[in-house]
Amino acid sequence: MIMGVDPGYALVGFGFVRYDPPRFVPVEYGSITTTSTDPFEKRLEIIFKRTLELIDKRKPEALAIERLYYTNNAKTVIGVAEARGVILLAAQLKGIPVFEYTPLQVKQAVTGYGQAIKPQMQEMTRRLLCLKEIPKPDDTADALAIAICHGQNCTVTKRLPKTYYYQKN
Amino acid sequence: MIMGVDPGYALVGFGFVRYDPPRFVPVEYGSITTTSTDPFEKRLEIIFKRTLELIDKRKPEALAIERLYYTNNAKTVIGVAEARGVILLAAQLKGIPVFEYTPLQVKQAVTGYGQAIKPQMQEMTRRLLCLKEIPKPDDTADALAIAICHGQNCTVTKRLPKTYYYQKN
Repeated sequence: MIMGVDPGYALVGFGFVRYDPPRFVPVEYGSITTTSTDPFEKRLEIIFKRTLELIDKRKPEALAIERLYYTNNAKTVIGVAEARGVILLAAQLKGIPVFEYTPLQVKQAVTGYGQAIKPQMQEMTRRLLCLKEIPKPDDTADALAIAICHGQNCTVTKRLPKTYYYQKN
Repeated sequence: MIMGVDPGYALVGFGFVRYDPPRFVPVEYGSITTTSTDPFEKRLEIIFKRTLELIDKRKPEALAIERLYYTNNAKTVIGVAEARGVILLAAQLKGIPVFEYTPLQVKQAVTGYGQAIKPQMQEMTRRLLCLKEIPKPDDTADALAIAICHGQNCTVTKRLPKTYYYQKN
């Protein structure tokens, strides 16, 4: 089980995906939202506590998150990084290893093409997860794409052949 | 009691100052350090837990912190903001109100001059706190300066005249 996260302070996209090679199974996805009327610290608290709850509920083996660059969006990047900090902290406190991917890696993993545009990414995410519609908002679709990226990149512990299970049980 | 904080991920400067107008009394100051050999999430955890401990120990009425700008230092600003996020979270979870100040406000509060250079800032911080030496590292001196800034800017609840206490007790 992989938890993909697209961080933000107004909206955190998340997506839990079970990777059963070669299939990706969407388990739960959505977003954590906070309102601008709350003090910023309160928004961080909401994001932190909701992330802890989601981890407790789904028990992911890994949290995958996109690398943030200071060039991302000058106006919001500090706030996004602060929110990202409390998400990383939540994973750390729950003992969930964190994996970072660049936007290039995510695009390559999902579409096979590093210069893919957003609609391509979203359509491929939809197809890989066998969903009827593209998940909304965009942040949720992005979080699912990051989870897929981790599934394809992680060194999955070799699965024992089925026969082993049959013998054992 | 005011807690001033200069955030970072390798080094967080902190300073607890009691403001007894017009005097500032340094109570405890130092730094939280983390090592680059630890995973980043582990460093965030250390900063978070140590901040919680310090708040529990000193019970500040306010946490004062400098505003961060994306122009600060392109290479480190994301990491600093992530560390800042977990510090704000610690204050929020402990119910400590957070106050942000711009570098200009801190300089004006400490030296009366918005363009003051670092050595001036440090020397005035030392004098205002009646310290023999400038606190080291720089981050600790900066944290103390931010605490002083908050003391001078906050709307202090009017203190009752001494006579009132004499009558009461």
